[in-house]
This record gives sequence, C-alpha cells and structure tokens, in this order.
Amino acid sequence: MQKPSLPKGTRDFGPIQMARRNFILDTIKDTFQLFGYQQIETPAMENLSTLTGKYGDEGDQLLFKILNSGDFLKDVTFADLEKGSGGVLTKVAEKGLRYDLTVPFARYVVMNRNELVFPFKRYQIQPVWRADRPQKGRYREFYQCDADVVGTDSLVCEAEIVLMIRRVFVRLGLADYGIKINNRKILTGIAEAIGEAGKEGPLCVAIDKLDKIGWEKVQEELIQRGFGLQSIQKLSPLVSLESDLKGKVEFLKTFLKDSPTGLKGVEELEEVFGILEKMGENLDHVDFDIMLARGLSYYTGAIFEVKVYGVSIGSVSGGGRYDNLTGVFGLPGVSGVGFSFGVDRLYDVLEELQLFPSDSLNGTRLLLAYFDSKGFEYALSILNHFRKAGIKVEIYPDQAKIKKQFEFATKKEIPFVGICGDDEIATGTISIKNLITGIQENLSLEAAVSKLS
Amino acid sequence: MQKPSLPKGTRDFGPIQMARRNFILDTIKDTFQLFGYQQIETPAMENLSTLTGKYGDEGDQLLFKILNSGDFLKDVTFADLEKGSGGVLTKVAEKGLRYDLTVPFARYVVMNRNELVFPFKRYQIQPVWRADRPQKGRYREFYQCDADVVGTDSLVCEAEIVLMIRRVFVRLGLADYGIKINNRKILTGIAEAIGEAGKEGPLCVAIDKLDKIGWEKVQEELIQRGFGLQSIQKLSPLVSLESDLKGKVEFLKTFLKDSPTGLKGVEELEEVFGILEKMGENLDHVDFDIMLARGLSYYTGAIFEVKVYGVSIGSVSGGGRYDNLTGVFGLPGVSGVGFSFGVDRLYDVLEELQLFPSDSLNGTRLLLAYFDSKGFEYALSILNHFRKAGIKVEIYPDQAKIKKQFEFATKKEIPFVGICGDDEIATGTISIKNLITGIQENLSLEAAVSKLS
Repeated sequence: MQKPSLPKGTRDFGPIQMARRNFILDTIKDTFQLFGYQQIETPAMENLSTLTGKYGDEGDQLLFKILNSGDFLKDVTFADLEKGSGGVLTKVAEKGLRYDLTVPFARYVVMNRNELVFPFKRYQIQPVWRADRPQKGRYREFYQCDADVVGTDSLVCEAEIVLMIRRVFVRLGLADYGIKINNRKILTGIAEAIGEAGKEGPLCVAIDKLDKIGWEKVQEELIQRGFGLQSIQKLSPLVSLESDLKGKVEFLKTFLKDSPTGLKGVEELEEVFGILEKMGENLDHVDFDIMLARGLSYYTGAIFEVKVYGVSIGSVSGGGRYDNLTGVFGLPGVSGVGFSFGVDRLYDVLEELQLFPSDSLNGTRLLLAYFDSKGFEYALSILNHFRKAGIKVEIYPDQAKIKKQFEFATKKEIPFVGICGDDEIATGTISIKNLITGIQENLSLEAAVSKLS
Repeated sequence: MQKPSLPKGTRDFGPIQMARRNFILDTIKDTFQLFGYQQIETPAMENLSTLTGKYGDEGDQLLFKILNSGDFLKDVTFADLEKGSGGVLTKVAEKGLRYDLTVPFARYVVMNRNELVFPFKRYQIQPVWRADRPQKGRYREFYQCDADVVGTDSLVCEAEIVLMIRRVFVRLGLADYGIKINNRKILTGIAEAIGEAGKEGPLCVAIDKLDKIGWEKVQEELIQRGFGLQSIQKLSPLVSLESDLKGKVEFLKTFLKDSPTGLKGVEELEEVFGILEKMGENLDHVDFDIMLARGLSYYTGAIFEVKVYGVSIGSVSGGGRYDNLTGVFGLPGVSGVGFSFGVDRLYDVLEELQLFPSDSLNGTRLLLAYFDSKGFEYALSILNHFRKAGIKVEIYPDQAKIKKQFEFATKKEIPFVGICGDDEIATGTISIKNLITGIQENLSLEAAVSKLS
C-alpha cells in the first residue's frame, strides 16, 4: 500500500484556505470588472516554441516540459543522446506548462487580433508553474492574477491602475501600504544625465538591488559593470534625495534637463497625477520612487510596485507599461500596460495582519440535528423550507447521538444547529441554537428563516 | 518571426465564452454550497505513483507526463534505452498532470484524514488533462466539476444529488432531461438471477453499449464474453421491459427474489425515493433505468447519469456510490457518493438550445464618450460617480472621433453610452443613449446612476 504524497513545491487548498483565497480573488475580480476588464483563460499547456526564449536562459531552465505522448524516444538518434539532455529535449517534448500569464496573453492577442476590440482590457486568473527550488513563500504552482490593457498608450490606464489597487486594498482592509511608481524613461534619462547613455539596462539591474544590498554595494556593482566613478557620483544625490512628490518632480526637471527622454518620463508621470486630480482623486498611498526599476526589462513607460508595510513579505503587486508585448509573435507596435496581484502573498499578508473576516468560510449556516428516526423524518421534511430561502443547510446524514451532531457542527464551523425533537415536531417549530453565543430559542419555521437570512 | 499556435486539443476562452462558462459554474457552485459542500483545490501536477494504475492501461497511456527538471537523462542507462520509451519513462518523469479529480481527492482525503470532519462534503472545479486523440467535443484540457461526500453510507446523499441536479437545471433553464438512476447491486443481482453469478463486470461492459449498438449486438458480445444462450434469454425480458418506476421495482422484486444482493439494491433505490418523498419532493425527471451501468467499474451502489433530450450530445452529468475510494492509498472502508457535471457539454447544450441569457456577458454597462479635451476632462470627473454606485463604467481612453467611440461600445456589447458634450458640461448632466433601443435622454448624474443601477 503506497503512502501518498504531493510533488515538491505544490499544495492542496482545503475548505478554509479556499474560502479565504476566494475572498481575495472575488475582491480583485469585482474591481477589474468595475473598470471594464474582461476575463479570458488560456490553456495550461503551450507549445514550447511559444514559451522558450521569452524568460531568459534561467527561465527556459525553469519551464516544466511535457513528455510527448506514446513512443517519445522514436525521433531520438544516437547523435542526440551523445549531446545529453540538451540534445534530446526538443525531440521528446513539444509542450510546456505556462510560466506566466503575459506570454500566453500576447499569443492570444496575436492569434485573435482580427476579432478583438481594441483597446482590449483583459484580466486572467490562473495558475502558473516554475521549476524553482521550493522555499518558504515560493511554490512550483501558484496563481497569477493579471490585468492588462493593450492597444492604447493613454495614461488614463495608468491612473486607473492606481484606483484599482486602492479599491482592492480598501476592501481587503489593508491601510498601511505604498504604491511605488516610476517611469522607465526617467531611468533612461538618468543614464544619459550621468554620462552613461544607453546603459540604463545594467543601471536598472544594479539599482533594483538598492533595497536589498544598500547603496554601497550597488556602487561596487556599478563599477564592476563599467560605470565611471564620476557617473556614480552624479547619481548619488538622486539616491539620497528625500523629498515629497512635487519636490522630486522639480528636482528631476533640472537633473534631466538635457535628456528629452527623461523629461518625457517626468511629463508622463505628471500627466498620470493630473488625470487622478481631474477624476477628483487624491494621491494617497502614491509614492514616486525614482529608483524603482523592477527586474523586468521590457517596461518602457510607467513602472509600479505595491508594498504593504509592517509585514515580512510586503511586495504584493507590480506592473508597468510595455511598447512591444506582441512583437515577438509578429504583431509590432501594440502598446499596453498591465499589473498583477500576488494572491499567495496577499494571503500571507492578510493572515499575518489577521484581516480575514471571521465568517470568510462562508459555509453551511444551519445543521438540522435530531434524536431519533421521527426527528430525522421531520428534519427531512423541513430542509427545503430553508434551501428555498437560500439558506445553506445540511442534515446530519447518519443517525447518531445528538452530541456527535453538535460536534460535527462545531468542527465544520456551522454557526447554528436546528434541533428537531418531539416538542418541535408536535408544534411544527424548530429550536435554533447559536453555537457561538450558546443561546437557544424555539421558533416557527418562518421566524427561523428570517433569523438566518 | 514565429506564427503562434495552440497545442492540439487545447483552447483559449475569450470574454464571451468565459462569461458563459462562469454563468454555468456559478450556478453549480451556488447549488453545491447550498447543500453544504465545501470547495477544495489540488495541484495540477501529481506524482506519477499517485496516478499510475488507477485508470487502467489505457488511462496510463493517456496521462501527460512531466519531464524531470535539469539533466533528465542522468539516471538513464543503456539497458533502459534498449527497452525503448517504456524502459526510460520512469527514469525521466516523476510527475504527471491530473487525469480526473477523483484520484487527487482520494489522495487528499487520505493525507488529511486526521484533520477532516467526516462526513466530508467537498466540491472541486478544476481542469484535467488527457492525451486523447482530439475530436469534436473532446479536448486534451477540460474542466471537471465534482461533488462528493465521503465517510457516510446514508442514502440522504443520493436523494440530495437528485435535488442538486434539478436545481442546477432549473436555473440553467433546462427542462427536457432525465436523471437516470440505477444501483450496481441490481446489476450484480441480475447476473446471479440469469445464472452468471460474479460476471456482472463483463455484463455491465456489454450492457453499457445498449444505447449505442442495440440489443442484438449486445447479445453477440455477451456470447463472445462467454454468457450462455439461456442466460441471455433470461435477460431479455428485462431489456424489453417498459414500465413506470413502481412497475420496474415490482418486476425486479420477483426477478431478483433469489439474490439478496439484488434485493438490497432495489431496497436502496426505494429508500432514495422514500427520502425524496419525506422531503416533500416529487420524482420529476427521475428515471429508473435498470440497464444503466456506466463504464466505471468502481461503483458499488447508486449509479447516476443525466441526459438532456433533443440535443446532439445529451449526457452532461453522472456519478455513483463507491465503497472503497481511498483503499488504494491505505485507508479502507471509506464509503462515498459523488457526481460530476460536464461543463463543456453543458456549454454546448445551452448554446444549441440558445439558453444563454442575452446579458450573460455581464460586462461594462456604460461607456463615457466625448468630442474634445473639455469633454474628456468632464468624463474623467464623473467616472467615479458611477463606480461608487457599483456601475461598471469605462472611458474611451484615447481622444477619438465620437463615431469610433460608439463603434467601440457596440463591438464590446456595452449597452449604454454617456455623452459628455458642451451642453452636458454646462448643465452638469449626462446624455445617456441606449444602444439597443436607440433612445437618448439627458439626465442628472443621480438620475443616470439610478437608471443604470
């Protein structure tokens, strides 16, 4: 007899976890829909030709590949075998599991470009798979939760991303957080302004580590990457700049005065703030972070990252604008902007802050309990009375001691037990016991329905 | 530049398909919850040791296997290679994609048996993968939608399955269908009664084809499977029996009088009908089908199958009771009963019968349109007015001709356009045009909100 187990880095979600995950996902979905985003789903399996080369060499290694069906070795030659796994791979696996939702979305847009209505706003909530080494908070299967709009470069989209994030956070009960925002063009401009034009790539990679390793180590890395000491010195006032949003904007207008690209970035950011103002919105939680770069190199405009303060893993959302999402599939010039919520991280944050509603299980509200077969039949006869009113109700299916039935209700977190004893049968009533307060009252069926509705 | 494509047998779901699928799934979820079922999810990947040997040889062939990460050939020897793909498989793949939701559920129950509250009612809605040859209506990735209760042999569960199916069908607008019900013990009893005791296995396999190939061909198959002519003759009155539910029960009580198992099956069925009666429910749509066997051999009690009449593929749901779901994982004696809705088939049925609600897209309700930048700013300023009231609203993000904005609304099936022109700005109002009726009216913002709520 085998003892079953789960593959490394994967998880089951039981009823309580599912109810809590659904609380998060429903909040996000509801918000996406309010802003006109429409849901799509793509298959778990994609052709490896779609996935490979999109996530860098490391990403290619982390793709889960699906073994071809049937005689998978049939096309493998001795020459392939001599090259080892790398030589054999393309002969034995044509498909892989999706690694994120962005590449499948790009493929979807390209394949459906003649039917889609642009600007196309889509959201997508599905699991992705990565053969990462599992560790705390990092899984091999996890959900992503993306919203993107493609086919427009309007900065209204950026402003609405801020609004969506704030709406989700209000509803989740999260108050202490910052929506960090920056613009890739500003980083490009900074590279120009410090005399390292065209090197915003390595600049971004190094700056991205500022939070983790500090300015000193970032300088060392910049030197290693060939930045001159003078350039780094020029960068320094930016790193240490402490100012409010308007102060930062003013500082950059001077700092970037010789970089048209940089100034364009500042202008775009100002326009986003201006749109929010025209919408009658304030800038609460919005934090212009000049050094925010994020790892992803395909951003070309706005860059977002949301951090919850006072918790162990605070980065729960991020995104940005990209100008060429679909170019790799033969459809150039499609500008888009998108962002993503990390559901697992939001889950951990809400748990750490004890913000899940106590009734988030949202399960059965009433258990009908009984002493004998007469009570059982009475319980059967009134079940539908409650269900018709939309009340989630169960009957304990086996004849058992009343104590066991109460234990069942307690363990399943059912808040009310409806007792069907001889008195209740005689009077056509039901005694409802609140398992939290311990209060029990005898009610007509109608009164019981209103009480529980 | 590569032309992207989808793997064979897989599909994307666009906004309209997703909205319709969600209409079906929400109806099912709502019903499962009303009856006290709780949601769980299990990982897409399972260890092959969990999956292999559970679905027969053919099933093992149809499992999608995941190539081990890294140097997957490292444990493969020349001796393995000489045996071909079969010899190499276990060395290069440890994991597979789930083939159904039943085996992962059994694994989950066994792994969590100390924490779960029995009887445990769970539902699970997730995709499964099978390397079947793709054909019309058969996909390599499709959703299953299962509800099971384990840890009780109470026939209340069977009765509630009938109620859940009927509730889902009412809500989907399906009226012409039958819930075929039988009991495996009756089939066992029939084998005994015709003098072929212990051969209900092959009897079921042959009888299962009755609908497809007819009685004559079934007889041929029975002969091939070693059934005697006399046995087949004894079976014949059953096959041709035309009677109502009570008539069939009476017939079987005589036919099976020497088979205690068979009589137990009839008794269980009668008890299910009795429980429905005690619940104040009728037997509408319930169809006792003595010949219903279904392919799955692990059923030990009730067997269900739901057929929608008057459509091309009518079988949309099925299930039954099993006595030893978890035995293979070392936990014997767990009785359970479950059933499953075929979401893809329900989708096709609702589409064929044109039963999807016309507003099932459930998307954006209002598009704010404008002529110039003044109108754009006015539209921005009133957006939140509608969103606060929960009305799904969008602004056309780019400055474009009003005609283009109306076309956008029409294509995206947005029913109302709110026009923000000079008059509206001057009076602080909005002109709402209903794109279906063509009627346009100038309204205060409050009136517009009530109109669209």
